[in-house]
Amino acid sequence: MTYQERYDYFRLAAEEALRAAIPADVPEPLASAMRYSLMAGGKRLRPVLLLAAHAMMQPDLTDALPFAAALEMVHTYSLIHDDLPAMDNDDLRRGKPTCHKVYGEGMAVLAGDGLLSLAFETMAASAHPRAFAALGELAARCGTRGMVAGQCADLTAEETGRDEQLLHYIHLHKTADLITAPVVMGLTLAGADAPLVAAGRAYGQCLGVAFQIIDDILDVTGTAAALGKHPGKDAQENKCTWVSIYGVDQARRDAARYTEQAVESLAPWGDRADFLIQLARHALVRVQ
Amino acid sequence: MTYQERYDYFRLAAEEALRAAIPADVPEPLASAMRYSLMAGGKRLRPVLLLAAHAMMQPDLTDALPFAAALEMVHTYSLIHDDLPAMDNDDLRRGKPTCHKVYGEGMAVLAGDGLLSLAFETMAASAHPRAFAALGELAARCGTRGMVAGQCADLTAEETGRDEQLLHYIHLHKTADLITAPVVMGLTLAGADAPLVAAGRAYGQCLGVAFQIIDDILDVTGTAAALGKHPGKDAQENKCTWVSIYGVDQARRDAARYTEQAVESLAPWGDRADFLIQLARHALVRVQ
Repeated sequence: MTYQERYDYFRLAAEEALRAAIPADVPEPLASAMRYSLMAGGKRLRPVLLLAAHAMMQPDLTDALPFAAALEMVHTYSLIHDDLPAMDNDDLRRGKPTCHKVYGEGMAVLAGDGLLSLAFETMAASAHPRAFAALGELAARCGTRGMVAGQCADLTAEETGRDEQLLHYIHLHKTADLITAPVVMGLTLAGADAPLVAAGRAYGQCLGVAFQIIDDILDVTGTAAALGKHPGKDAQENKCTWVSIYGVDQARRDAARYTEQAVESLAPWGDRADFLIQLARHALVRVQ
Repeated sequence: MTYQERYDYFRLAAEEALRAAIPADVPEPLASAMRYSLMAGGKRLRPVLLLAAHAMMQPDLTDALPFAAALEMVHTYSLIHDDLPAMDNDDLRRGKPTCHKVYGEGMAVLAGDGLLSLAFETMAASAHPRAFAALGELAARCGTRGMVAGQCADLTAEETGRDEQLLHYIHLHKTADLITAPVVMGLTLAGADAPLVAAGRAYGQCLGVAFQIIDDILDVTGTAAALGKHPGKDAQENKCTWVSIYGVDQARRDAARYTEQAVESLAPWGDRADFLIQLARHALVRVQ
Protein backbone atom coordinates (compact mmCIF):
# COMPACT_ATOMS: atom_id res chain seq x y z
CA MET A 1 0.00 0.00 0.00
CA THR A 2 1.08 3.57 -0.69
CA TYR A 3 1.24 6.12 2.10
CA GLN A 4 -2.10 7.62 0.99
CA GLU A 5 -3.78 4.22 0.85
CA ARG A 6 -2.63 3.46 4.37
CA TYR A 7 -3.81 6.87 5.59
CA ASP A 8 -7.22 6.27 4.03
CA TYR A 9 -7.39 2.78 5.53
CA PHE A 10 -6.97 4.24 9.02
CA ARG A 11 -9.21 7.21 8.26
CA LEU A 12 -12.07 5.08 6.93
CA ALA A 13 -11.88 2.80 9.98
CA ALA A 14 -12.19 5.91 12.15
CA GLU A 15 -15.08 7.28 10.05
CA GLU A 16 -16.98 4.04 10.48
CA ALA A 17 -16.46 4.11 14.25
CA LEU A 18 -17.65 7.73 14.34
CA ARG A 19 -20.80 7.01 12.35
CA ALA A 20 -21.89 4.60 15.09
CA ALA A 21 -20.61 6.78 17.93
CA ILE A 22 -23.67 8.84 18.84
CA PRO A 23 -26.23 6.63 20.61
CA ALA A 24 -29.75 6.49 19.15
CA ASP A 25 -31.40 7.79 22.32
CA VAL A 26 -29.56 11.10 22.52
CA PRO A 27 -32.33 13.75 22.31
CA GLU A 28 -32.77 16.23 19.46
CA PRO A 29 -31.48 18.74 18.54
CA LEU A 30 -28.46 17.76 20.68
CA ALA A 31 -27.75 14.63 18.62
CA SER A 32 -27.92 16.55 15.33
CA ALA A 33 -25.71 19.36 16.61
CA MET A 34 -23.09 16.86 17.77
CA ARG A 35 -23.30 14.85 14.55
CA TYR A 36 -23.17 17.99 12.38
CA SER A 37 -19.74 18.92 13.73
CA LEU A 38 -18.43 15.39 14.27
CA MET A 39 -19.23 14.30 10.71
CA ALA A 40 -18.14 17.53 8.99
CA GLY A 41 -15.18 15.75 7.44
CA GLY A 42 -11.64 16.77 8.18
CA LYS A 43 -8.49 14.69 7.98
CA ARG A 44 -9.25 12.63 11.11
CA LEU A 45 -5.62 13.12 12.02
CA ARG A 46 -5.93 12.19 15.70
CA PRO A 47 -7.77 8.88 15.19
CA VAL A 48 -5.40 8.05 12.32
CA LEU A 49 -2.42 8.67 14.60
CA LEU A 50 -3.88 6.42 17.30
CA LEU A 51 -4.65 3.59 14.87
CA ALA A 52 -1.30 3.90 13.08
CA ALA A 53 0.59 3.86 16.39
CA HIS A 54 -1.43 0.82 17.49
CA ALA A 55 -0.75 -0.95 14.19
CA MET A 56 3.02 -0.69 14.72
CA MET A 57 2.58 -3.43 17.34
CA GLN A 58 -0.88 -4.87 16.82
CA PRO A 59 -2.55 -4.78 13.37
CA ASP A 60 -6.01 -5.81 14.66
CA LEU A 61 -7.53 -2.39 15.37
CA THR A 62 -10.98 -3.47 16.60
CA ASP A 63 -10.41 -2.82 20.29
CA ALA A 64 -8.71 0.52 19.59
CA LEU A 65 -11.61 1.98 17.58
CA PRO A 66 -13.64 3.35 20.53
CA PHE A 67 -10.54 5.28 21.63
CA ALA A 68 -10.00 6.62 18.11
CA ALA A 69 -13.61 7.82 18.09
CA ALA A 70 -13.20 9.37 21.55
CA LEU A 71 -10.21 11.39 20.35
CA GLU A 72 -12.13 12.88 17.44
CA MET A 73 -15.00 13.71 19.81
CA VAL A 74 -12.62 15.61 22.10
CA HIS A 75 -11.07 17.40 19.13
CA THR A 76 -14.50 18.32 17.75
CA TYR A 77 -15.78 19.58 21.12
CA SER A 78 -12.75 21.85 21.35
CA LEU A 79 -13.47 23.27 17.88
CA ILE A 80 -17.16 23.89 18.66
CA HIS A 81 -16.35 25.79 21.87
CA ASP A 82 -13.38 27.55 20.28
CA ASP A 83 -15.60 28.86 17.46
CA LEU A 84 -18.14 30.42 19.88
CA PRO A 85 -18.59 34.20 19.72
CA ALA A 86 -17.12 34.50 23.24
CA MET A 87 -13.97 32.68 22.09
CA ASP A 88 -12.59 32.92 18.52
CA ASN A 89 -15.96 33.92 16.98
CA ASP A 90 -15.66 31.89 13.77
CA ASP A 91 -18.59 31.35 11.45
CA LEU A 92 -16.87 28.95 9.03
CA ARG A 93 -15.21 25.61 9.83
CA ARG A 94 -14.25 22.85 7.41
CA GLY A 95 -16.07 24.84 4.70
CA LYS A 96 -19.40 24.81 6.57
CA PRO A 97 -21.15 27.23 8.94
CA THR A 98 -19.99 26.60 12.51
CA CYS A 99 -22.16 24.68 14.99
CA HIS A 100 -23.47 27.75 16.81
CA LYS A 101 -24.40 29.42 13.51
CA VAL A 102 -26.68 26.47 12.70
CA TYR A 103 -27.95 25.37 16.13
CA GLY A 104 -27.54 28.52 18.26
CA GLU A 105 -25.00 29.29 20.96
CA GLY A 106 -26.70 27.45 23.81
CA MET A 107 -26.98 24.23 21.85
CA ALA A 108 -23.38 24.59 20.64
CA VAL A 109 -22.19 24.81 24.26
CA LEU A 110 -24.19 21.65 25.03
CA ALA A 111 -23.00 19.85 21.87
CA GLY A 112 -19.41 20.45 22.99
CA ASP A 113 -20.18 19.35 26.55
CA GLY A 114 -21.95 16.30 25.13
CA LEU A 115 -19.04 15.28 22.92
CA LEU A 116 -16.52 15.60 25.76
CA SER A 117 -18.76 13.52 28.04
CA LEU A 118 -19.44 10.95 25.33
CA ALA A 119 -15.72 10.57 24.70
CA PHE A 120 -15.19 9.46 28.30
CA GLU A 121 -18.38 7.37 28.32
CA THR A 122 -17.20 5.59 25.16
CA MET A 123 -13.78 4.81 26.63
CA ALA A 124 -15.27 3.80 29.98
CA ALA A 125 -17.53 1.28 28.22
CA SER A 126 -14.49 -0.51 26.79
CA ALA A 127 -13.51 -3.91 28.17
CA HIS A 128 -9.92 -3.41 26.96
CA PRO A 129 -7.48 -4.39 29.73
CA ARG A 130 -5.53 -1.15 29.25
CA ALA A 131 -8.59 1.09 28.79
CA PHE A 132 -8.08 2.90 32.09
CA ALA A 133 -4.49 3.89 31.26
CA ALA A 134 -5.46 5.12 27.78
CA LEU A 135 -8.38 7.09 29.20
CA GLY A 136 -6.09 8.65 31.79
CA GLU A 137 -3.67 9.80 29.11
CA LEU A 138 -6.45 11.58 27.20
CA ALA A 139 -7.89 13.10 30.39
CA ALA A 140 -4.49 14.55 31.27
CA ARG A 141 -3.75 15.89 27.76
CA CYS A 142 -7.15 17.48 27.07
CA GLY A 143 -7.56 19.21 30.41
CA THR A 144 -6.44 22.09 32.58
CA ARG A 145 -2.73 21.43 32.12
CA GLY A 146 -3.20 20.35 28.52
CA MET A 147 -5.46 21.56 25.76
CA VAL A 148 -7.73 23.72 27.91
CA ALA A 149 -4.63 25.35 29.45
CA GLY A 150 -3.42 26.15 25.93
CA GLN A 151 -6.77 27.64 25.00
CA CYS A 152 -6.69 29.78 28.13
CA ALA A 153 -3.22 31.10 27.23
CA ASP A 154 -4.36 31.69 23.65
CA LEU A 155 -7.49 33.56 24.75
CA THR A 156 -5.61 35.85 27.13
CA ALA A 157 -2.48 36.34 24.98
CA GLU A 158 -3.59 39.79 23.88
CA GLU A 159 -3.63 41.06 27.45
CA THR A 160 -0.66 39.18 28.88
CA GLY A 161 1.71 40.25 26.12
CA ARG A 162 3.21 37.92 23.54
CA ASP A 163 6.65 36.42 23.91
CA GLU A 164 8.48 33.27 22.88
CA GLN A 165 7.79 31.48 26.15
CA LEU A 166 4.04 32.06 25.82
CA LEU A 167 4.13 31.02 22.17
CA HIS A 168 5.74 27.69 23.02
CA TYR A 169 3.27 27.12 25.87
CA ILE A 170 0.31 27.73 23.56
CA HIS A 171 1.61 25.50 20.77
CA LEU A 172 2.58 22.70 23.13
CA HIS A 173 -0.73 22.62 24.96
CA LYS A 174 -3.33 23.98 22.58
CA THR A 175 -2.23 21.71 19.76
CA ALA A 176 0.61 19.29 20.52
CA ASP A 177 -1.04 17.70 23.57
CA LEU A 178 -3.90 16.37 21.47
CA ILE A 179 -1.44 15.12 18.84
CA THR A 180 0.67 13.41 21.50
CA ALA A 181 -2.27 11.72 23.25
CA PRO A 182 -3.30 9.56 20.26
CA VAL A 183 0.22 8.23 19.74
CA VAL A 184 0.67 7.42 23.44
CA MET A 185 -2.84 5.93 23.68
CA GLY A 186 -2.37 3.74 20.59
CA LEU A 187 0.94 2.41 21.88
CA THR A 188 -0.42 1.93 25.40
CA LEU A 189 -3.45 -0.01 24.16
CA ALA A 190 -1.20 -2.17 21.99
CA GLY A 191 0.96 -2.98 25.01
CA ALA A 192 4.21 -1.21 24.09
CA ASP A 193 6.77 -0.96 26.87
CA ALA A 194 7.74 2.31 28.53
CA PRO A 195 10.79 3.31 26.40
CA LEU A 196 8.85 2.74 23.17
CA VAL A 197 5.88 4.75 24.51
CA ALA A 198 8.31 7.53 25.48
CA ALA A 199 9.66 7.59 21.92
CA GLY A 200 6.09 7.91 20.64
CA ARG A 201 5.41 10.74 23.08
CA ALA A 202 8.47 12.67 21.88
CA TYR A 203 7.33 12.17 18.27
CA GLY A 204 3.84 13.45 19.11
CA GLN A 205 5.09 16.56 20.87
CA CYS A 206 7.44 17.57 18.02
CA LEU A 207 4.86 16.71 15.36
CA GLY A 208 2.21 18.71 17.22
CA VAL A 209 4.37 21.83 17.42
CA ALA A 210 5.30 21.42 13.72
CA PHE A 211 1.60 21.13 12.85
CA GLN A 212 0.68 24.31 14.68
CA ILE A 213 3.55 26.22 13.05
CA ILE A 214 2.32 24.97 9.66
CA ASP A 215 -1.21 26.08 10.58
CA ASP A 216 0.11 29.52 11.54
CA ILE A 217 1.90 29.79 8.18
CA LEU A 218 -1.19 28.69 6.22
CA ASP A 219 -3.27 31.33 7.99
CA VAL A 220 -1.01 33.87 6.26
CA THR A 221 -0.43 32.15 2.90
CA GLY A 222 -3.60 30.01 2.40
CA THR A 223 -7.02 30.66 0.86
CA ALA A 224 -10.48 30.09 2.38
CA ALA A 225 -11.18 27.44 -0.26
CA ALA A 226 -8.03 25.47 0.60
CA LEU A 227 -8.38 25.88 4.37
CA GLY A 228 -12.16 25.53 4.82
CA LYS A 229 -12.01 28.53 7.15
CA HIS A 230 -11.22 32.22 6.83
CA PRO A 231 -7.46 32.94 6.54
CA GLY A 232 -5.89 36.04 8.05
CA LYS A 233 -7.86 35.68 11.30
CA ASP A 234 -4.71 35.40 13.43
CA ALA A 235 -3.31 38.75 12.40
CA GLN A 236 -6.75 40.33 12.53
CA GLU A 237 -7.21 39.20 16.12
CA ASN A 238 -3.64 39.90 17.12
CA LYS A 239 -3.05 36.23 17.98
CA CYS A 240 0.23 34.96 19.36
CA THR A 241 1.49 32.80 16.46
CA TRP A 242 4.83 31.50 15.21
CA VAL A 243 4.57 33.90 12.27
CA SER A 244 3.79 36.93 14.43
CA ILE A 245 6.82 36.25 16.65
CA TYR A 246 9.38 34.87 14.17
CA GLY A 247 8.09 35.76 10.66
CA VAL A 248 7.16 33.38 7.82
CA ASP A 249 10.69 32.38 6.75
CA GLN A 250 11.81 31.44 10.24
CA ALA A 251 8.49 29.63 10.78
CA ARG A 252 9.13 27.50 7.67
CA ARG A 253 12.60 26.55 8.95
CA ASP A 254 11.27 25.76 12.42
CA ALA A 255 8.46 23.60 11.01
CA ALA A 256 11.09 21.60 9.13
CA ARG A 257 13.28 21.35 12.23
CA TYR A 258 10.45 20.10 14.49
CA THR A 259 9.42 17.64 11.79
CA GLU A 260 12.94 16.19 11.66
CA GLN A 261 13.01 15.98 15.46
CA ALA A 262 9.74 14.10 15.35
CA VAL A 263 11.18 11.66 12.83
CA GLU A 264 14.37 11.15 14.85
CA SER A 265 12.36 10.43 18.00
CA LEU A 266 11.01 7.29 16.37
CA ALA A 267 14.47 5.72 15.92
CA PRO A 268 13.76 3.01 18.56
CA TRP A 269 10.85 1.81 16.41
CA GLY A 270 13.01 1.11 13.33
CA ASP A 271 11.17 0.22 10.12
CA ARG A 272 7.84 -0.10 11.86
CA ALA A 273 7.71 3.70 12.08
CA ASP A 274 7.62 4.21 8.29
CA PHE A 275 4.04 5.43 8.18
CA LEU A 276 4.35 7.88 11.08
CA ILE A 277 7.54 9.26 9.53
CA GLN A 278 5.83 9.78 6.17
CA LEU A 279 2.88 11.40 7.90
CA ALA A 280 5.14 13.99 9.51
CA ARG A 281 6.88 14.79 6.19
CA HIS A 282 3.64 15.00 4.20
CA ALA A 283 2.32 17.73 6.49
CA LEU A 284 5.41 19.83 5.93
CA VAL A 285 5.00 19.79 2.14
CA ARG A 286 1.98 22.12 2.41
CA VAL A 287 4.17 25.06 3.40
CA GLN A 288 7.25 24.42 1.24
CA MET B 1 -23.64 12.28 66.17
CA THR B 2 -26.76 14.20 65.16
CA TYR B 3 -27.89 14.22 61.53
CA GLN B 4 -26.42 17.69 61.05
CA GLU B 5 -23.08 16.69 62.59
CA ARG B 6 -22.85 13.73 60.26
CA TYR B 7 -23.75 15.88 57.26
CA ASP B 8 -21.05 18.37 58.22
CA TYR B 9 -18.52 15.59 58.73
CA PHE B 10 -19.03 14.41 55.13
CA ARG B 11 -19.26 17.97 53.82
CA LEU B 12 -16.02 19.08 55.47
CA ALA B 13 -14.20 16.01 54.13
CA ALA B 14 -15.42 16.99 50.65
CA GLU B 15 -14.42 20.64 51.16
CA GLU B 16 -10.91 19.58 52.09
CA ALA B 17 -10.62 17.37 48.99
CA LEU B 18 -11.88 20.26 46.85
CA ARG B 19 -9.39 22.74 48.26
CA ALA B 20 -6.57 20.52 46.99
CA ALA B 21 -8.33 19.62 43.75
CA ILE B 22 -7.02 22.26 41.34
CA PRO B 23 -3.37 21.54 40.50
CA ALA B 24 -0.84 24.32 41.11
CA ASP B 25 0.28 24.47 37.46
CA VAL B 26 -3.12 25.30 35.95
CA PRO B 27 -2.61 28.68 34.24
CA GLU B 28 -4.32 31.92 35.26
CA PRO B 29 -7.03 33.15 34.99
CA LEU B 30 -8.35 29.63 34.29
CA ALA B 31 -7.40 28.36 37.76
CA SER B 32 -9.05 31.32 39.49
CA ALA B 33 -12.21 31.05 37.39
CA MET B 34 -12.50 27.34 38.22
CA ARG B 35 -11.75 27.91 41.91
CA TYR B 36 -14.16 30.84 42.13
CA SER B 37 -17.12 28.66 41.18
CA LEU B 38 -15.89 25.44 42.80
CA MET B 39 -15.30 27.08 46.20
CA ALA B 40 -18.43 29.27 46.18
CA GLY B 41 -19.96 27.20 48.95
CA GLY B 42 -23.18 25.32 48.50
CA LYS B 43 -24.38 22.25 50.34
CA ARG B 44 -21.95 19.84 48.63
CA LEU B 45 -24.89 17.48 48.33
CA ARG B 46 -23.39 15.22 45.68
CA PRO B 47 -20.05 14.57 47.44
CA VAL B 48 -21.94 14.10 50.72
CA LEU B 49 -24.19 11.50 49.07
CA LEU B 50 -21.18 9.64 47.71
CA LEU B 51 -19.34 9.63 51.03
CA ALA B 52 -22.47 8.71 53.01
CA ALA B 53 -23.27 5.84 50.63
CA HIS B 54 -19.66 4.64 50.88
CA ALA B 55 -19.76 4.87 54.69
CA MET B 56 -22.73 2.47 54.85
CA MET B 57 -20.23 -0.28 53.97
CA GLN B 58 -16.80 1.18 54.49
CA PRO B 59 -16.20 4.02 56.99
CA ASP B 60 -12.66 4.80 55.78
CA LEU B 61 -13.41 7.44 53.14
CA THR B 62 -9.86 8.23 52.00
CA ASP B 63 -9.99 6.39 48.68
CA ALA B 64 -13.44 7.77 47.88
CA LEU B 65 -12.45 11.44 48.26
CA PRO B 66 -11.16 11.98 44.69
CA PHE B 67 -14.49 10.73 43.38
CA ALA B 68 -16.41 13.03 45.73
CA ALA B 69 -14.33 15.95 44.44
CA ALA B 70 -14.92 14.86 40.82
CA LEU B 71 -18.69 14.91 41.37
CA GLU B 72 -18.66 18.47 42.67
CA MET B 73 -16.48 19.50 39.70
CA VAL B 74 -19.02 18.05 37.26
CA HIS B 75 -21.87 19.73 39.12
CA THR B 76 -20.04 23.07 39.14
CA TYR B 77 -19.15 22.86 35.43
CA SER B 78 -22.83 22.30 34.65
CA LEU B 79 -23.80 25.38 36.68
CA ILE B 80 -21.18 27.59 35.01
CA HIS B 81 -22.31 26.62 31.50
CA ASP B 82 -26.00 26.71 32.50
CA ASP B 83 -25.61 30.30 33.75
CA LEU B 84 -24.11 31.54 30.44
CA PRO B 85 -26.08 34.21 28.55
CA ALA B 86 -26.73 31.71 25.72
CA MET B 87 -28.26 29.28 28.23
CA ASP B 88 -30.19 30.43 31.34
CA ASN B 89 -28.49 33.84 31.48
CA ASP B 90 -28.11 34.07 35.27
CA ASP B 91 -25.94 36.69 36.93
CA LEU B 92 -26.29 35.43 40.52
CA ARG B 93 -25.42 31.98 41.86
CA ARG B 94 -24.96 30.96 45.48
CA GLY B 95 -25.28 34.64 46.36
CA LYS B 96 -22.31 35.69 44.20
CA PRO B 97 -21.97 37.01 40.64
CA THR B 98 -21.80 34.10 38.20
CA CYS B 99 -18.49 32.97 36.70
CA HIS B 100 -18.97 34.70 33.35
CA LYS B 101 -19.89 37.96 35.08
CA VAL B 102 -16.51 37.97 36.83
CA TYR B 103 -14.20 36.29 34.28
CA GLY B 104 -15.99 36.88 30.96
CA GLU B 105 -17.91 34.43 28.82
CA GLY B 106 -14.94 32.88 27.04
CA MET B 107 -13.15 32.10 30.28
CA ALA B 108 -16.39 30.75 31.80
CA VAL B 109 -16.75 28.32 28.89
CA LEU B 110 -13.15 27.21 29.49
CA ALA B 111 -13.60 27.00 33.28
CA GLY B 112 -16.52 24.62 32.72
CA ASP B 113 -14.58 22.59 30.17
CA GLY B 114 -11.63 22.52 32.57
CA LEU B 115 -13.70 21.29 35.53
CA LEU B 116 -15.29 18.51 33.47
CA SER B 117 -11.87 17.42 32.20
CA LEU B 118 -10.31 17.65 35.66
CA ALA B 119 -13.10 15.49 37.09
CA PHE B 120 -12.14 12.66 34.76
CA GLU B 121 -8.42 13.30 35.20
CA THR B 122 -8.85 13.12 38.98
CA MET B 123 -10.75 9.83 38.82
CA ALA B 124 -8.36 8.38 36.25
CA ALA B 125 -5.42 9.12 38.58
CA SER B 126 -6.96 6.92 41.28
CA ALA B 127 -5.42 3.55 42.05
CA HIS B 128 -8.73 2.31 43.50
CA PRO B 129 -9.48 -1.20 42.16
CA ARG B 130 -13.04 -0.13 41.28
CA ALA B 131 -12.12 3.31 39.91
CA PHE B 132 -12.97 2.42 36.32
CA ALA B 133 -16.51 1.29 37.20
CA ALA B 134 -17.16 4.40 39.29
CA LEU B 135 -15.81 6.66 36.53
CA GLY B 136 -18.03 4.88 33.99
CA GLU B 137 -21.11 5.51 36.12
CA LEU B 138 -20.38 9.23 36.27
CA ALA B 139 -19.59 9.40 32.53
CA ALA B 140 -22.94 7.78 31.71
CA ARG B 141 -24.98 9.94 34.10
CA CYS B 142 -23.44 13.32 33.21
CA GLY B 143 -23.51 12.92 29.44
CA THR B 144 -25.71 12.89 26.35
CA ARG B 145 -28.29 10.48 27.79
CA GLY B 146 -27.95 11.95 31.27
CA MET B 147 -27.45 15.47 32.54
CA VAL B 148 -26.59 17.06 29.17
CA ALA B 149 -29.66 15.40 27.64
CA GLY B 150 -31.77 16.94 30.41
CA GLN B 151 -30.24 20.36 29.79
CA CYS B 152 -31.01 20.02 26.07
CA ALA B 153 -34.66 19.18 26.81
CA ASP B 154 -34.83 22.08 29.29
CA LEU B 155 -33.33 24.53 26.80
CA THR B 156 -35.70 23.57 24.00
CA ALA B 157 -38.83 23.07 26.15
CA GLU B 158 -40.29 26.41 25.09
CA GLU B 159 -40.32 25.36 21.45
CA THR B 160 -41.20 21.69 21.79
CA GLY B 161 -44.23 22.34 23.99
CA ARG B 162 -44.50 21.34 27.63
CA ASP B 163 -46.19 18.17 28.76
CA GLU B 164 -45.88 15.66 31.60
CA GLN B 165 -43.62 13.32 29.65
CA LEU B 166 -41.14 16.10 28.90
CA LEU B 167 -41.29 17.29 32.51
CA HIS B 168 -40.35 13.85 33.82
CA TYR B 169 -37.55 13.54 31.25
CA ILE B 170 -36.08 16.89 32.29
CA HIS B 171 -36.28 16.17 36.03
CA LEU B 172 -34.88 12.67 35.69
CA HIS B 173 -31.93 13.67 33.55
CA LYS B 174 -31.18 17.29 34.34
CA THR B 175 -31.21 16.71 38.09
CA ALA B 176 -31.80 13.12 39.24
CA ASP B 177 -28.98 11.58 37.19
CA LEU B 178 -26.35 13.58 39.07
CA ILE B 179 -28.02 12.69 42.40
CA THR B 180 -28.11 9.00 41.46
CA ALA B 181 -24.49 8.84 40.30
CA PRO B 182 -22.95 9.69 43.71
CA VAL B 183 -24.96 7.00 45.52
CA VAL B 184 -24.12 4.35 42.92
CA MET B 185 -20.46 5.43 42.81
CA GLY B 186 -20.10 5.40 46.60
CA LEU B 187 -21.60 1.93 46.85
CA THR B 188 -19.60 0.65 43.90
CA LEU B 189 -16.32 1.94 45.34
CA ALA B 190 -17.16 0.36 48.70
CA GLY B 191 -17.75 -2.99 47.01
CA ALA B 192 -21.52 -3.40 47.50
CA ASP B 193 -23.13 -6.22 45.54
CA ALA B 194 -25.54 -5.66 42.65
CA PRO B 195 -28.91 -5.78 44.52
CA LEU B 196 -27.69 -3.29 47.13
CA VAL B 197 -26.34 -0.97 44.41
CA ALA B 198 -29.72 -1.23 42.63
CA ALA B 199 -31.48 -0.19 45.84
CA GLY B 200 -29.15 2.83 46.05
CA ARG B 201 -29.86 3.71 42.43
CA ALA B 202 -33.63 3.66 43.03
CA TYR B 203 -33.13 5.90 46.08
CA GLY B 204 -31.05 8.35 44.06
CA GLN B 205 -33.55 8.59 41.22
CA CYS B 206 -36.52 9.25 43.54
CA LEU B 207 -34.52 11.64 45.70
CA GLY B 208 -33.33 13.51 42.62
CA VAL B 209 -36.84 14.00 41.26
CA ALA B 210 -38.02 15.09 44.73
CA PHE B 211 -35.15 17.61 44.90
CA GLN B 212 -36.02 19.15 41.54
CA ILE B 213 -39.70 19.42 42.49
CA ILE B 214 -38.63 21.15 45.72
CA ASP B 215 -36.41 23.47 43.69
CA ASP B 216 -39.32 24.28 41.38
CA ILE B 217 -41.50 25.10 44.39
CA LEU B 218 -38.83 27.29 46.01
CA ASP B 219 -38.47 29.24 42.75
CA VAL B 220 -42.08 30.34 43.34
CA THR B 221 -42.11 30.65 47.14
CA GLY B 222 -38.48 31.50 48.03
CA THR B 223 -36.49 34.74 48.34
CA ALA B 224 -33.20 35.69 46.70
CA ALA B 225 -31.57 35.87 50.14
CA ALA B 226 -32.63 32.33 51.03
CA LEU B 227 -31.90 30.84 47.60
CA GLY B 228 -28.68 32.66 46.68
CA LYS B 229 -30.17 33.22 43.22
CA HIS B 230 -33.07 35.14 41.73
CA PRO B 231 -36.45 33.49 42.33
CA GLY B 232 -39.25 33.67 39.76
CA LYS B 233 -36.88 32.94 36.85
CA ASP B 234 -38.74 29.77 35.83
CA ALA B 235 -42.08 31.51 35.26
CA GLN B 236 -40.32 34.48 33.68
CA GLU B 237 -38.61 32.21 31.16
CA ASN B 238 -41.61 29.97 30.68
CA LYS B 239 -39.69 26.93 31.94
CA CYS B 240 -41.20 23.48 32.06
CA THR B 241 -41.42 22.91 35.86
CA TRP B 242 -43.47 20.76 38.23
CA VAL B 243 -45.27 23.88 39.41
CA SER B 244 -46.10 25.09 35.89
CA ILE B 245 -47.59 21.70 34.97
CA TYR B 246 -49.21 20.60 38.24
CA GLY B 247 -49.44 23.71 40.45
CA VAL B 248 -47.82 24.30 43.87
CA ASP B 249 -50.14 22.11 45.95
CA GLN B 250 -49.77 19.05 43.75
CA ALA B 251 -46.02 19.68 43.58
CA ARG B 252 -45.83 19.60 47.40
CA ARG B 253 -47.69 16.29 47.49
CA ASP B 254 -45.51 14.81 44.74
CA ALA B 255 -42.31 15.92 46.47
CA ALA B 256 -43.49 14.08 49.60
CA ARG B 257 -44.43 11.01 47.57
CA TYR B 258 -41.06 10.80 45.78
CA THR B 259 -39.29 11.31 49.11
CA GLU B 260 -41.17 8.37 50.62
CA GLN B 261 -40.38 6.24 47.57
CA ALA B 262 -36.72 7.13 48.00
CA VAL B 263 -36.85 6.07 51.65
CA GLU B 264 -38.64 2.79 50.84
CA SER B 265 -36.05 1.95 48.18
CA LEU B 266 -33.42 1.69 50.90
CA ALA B 267 -35.23 -1.13 52.75
CA PRO B 268 -32.55 -3.71 51.81
CA TRP B 269 -29.98 -1.59 53.64
CA GLY B 270 -31.83 -1.72 56.98
CA ASP B 271 -30.47 0.48 59.79
CA ARG B 272 -27.37 1.39 57.84
CA ALA B 273 -29.52 3.68 55.67
CA ASP B 274 -30.48 6.01 58.56
CA PHE B 275 -28.46 8.97 57.36
CA LEU B 276 -29.62 8.78 53.73
CA ILE B 277 -33.23 8.50 54.92
CA GLN B 278 -32.85 11.57 57.14
CA LEU B 279 -31.22 13.45 54.29
CA ALA B 280 -34.23 12.84 52.04
CA ARG B 281 -36.69 13.97 54.73
CA HIS B 282 -34.69 17.07 55.66
CA ALA B 283 -34.87 18.35 52.09
CA LEU B 284 -38.63 18.07 52.07
CA VAL B 285 -39.02 20.25 55.17
CA ARG B 286 -38.03 23.33 53.16
CA VAL B 287 -41.33 23.30 51.26
CA GLN B 288 -43.72 22.12 53.99
